[in-house]
Amino acid sequence: MTIFKLDHRLKNDCIEIGEMRLCRILLMDDQRWPWIVLVPRKLDVCEIHDLEDADQVLLHSETKRIAQALGAITECEKINSGALGNIVRQLHIHVVARNIDDANWPGPVWGFEKRIPYQGNNAKILATNIQHRLALHEEFL
Amino acid sequence: MTIFKLDHRLKNDCIEIGEMRLCRILLMDDQRWPWIVLVPRKLDVCEIHDLEDADQVLLHSETKRIAQALGAITECEKINSGALGNIVRQLHIHVVARNIDDANWPGPVWGFEKRIPYQGNNAKILATNIQHRLALHEEFL
Repeated sequence: MTIFKLDHRLKNDCIEIGEMRLCRILLMDDQRWPWIVLVPRKLDVCEIHDLEDADQVLLHSETKRIAQALGAITECEKINSGALGNIVRQLHIHVVARNIDDANWPGPVWGFEKRIPYQGNNAKILATNIQHRLALHEEFL
Repeated sequence: MTIFKLDHRLKNDCIEIGEMRLCRILLMDDQRWPWIVLVPRKLDVCEIHDLEDADQVLLHSETKRIAQALGAITECEKINSGALGNIVRQLHIHVVARNIDDANWPGPVWGFEKRIPYQGNNAKILATNIQHRLALHEEFL
């Protein structure tokens, strides 16, 4: 049996904050925008439509939960979501809270300059907020 | 009853090539990359999670069909999909075929320079291919 292993670039750029039934939940370590990356714990899947049907349903449901949690916590102007994977081929879904005064509004977050890591406790505070918000609506993550 | 009306910027930048049960199918008039935009025919919905549950299922299914059709027709390296909507708030989903020699690989298509409209029959040829590919698997669009 081959064990799921998070891509080393995602591991390097993100902070692991939890798991749902399908996905590992990562917080991008970039203080410019609250940015979650969901990674289905499946091997060798690059495109959403290559997941099994039941997993596609789960992915949609988990992405929705993250989008709603991020929206509620940040009171952002807009959620941006996307599946690109041109560099990191391990399937991963971005869910990002955007605001009109953020670093590249209304342009995309992808490919925009360098990430700026969180300082002090800020990543931990946001991660805890997200964990609590998700746990509010389910008995377990 | 208020009638669905396509945002004027989408109307200006895209070519309408068909309809599915939920979405209008648009081809972005940009020869740099084969790029479909799906627009649910719903009023005043900005986020995917604001659609009714049944429509979210349809949107996922229609996005998947478009991604698979675009992948099969273009034999692209990667599908990129995304819902941004920072400028045009009418909910719309991008599905883009990417290749390693395209204009901004591996960066995103969004916000990258100006679109270059198709010349001659090229948009019509691609639109017809997509229409045929979709119709192969369903009795009607």
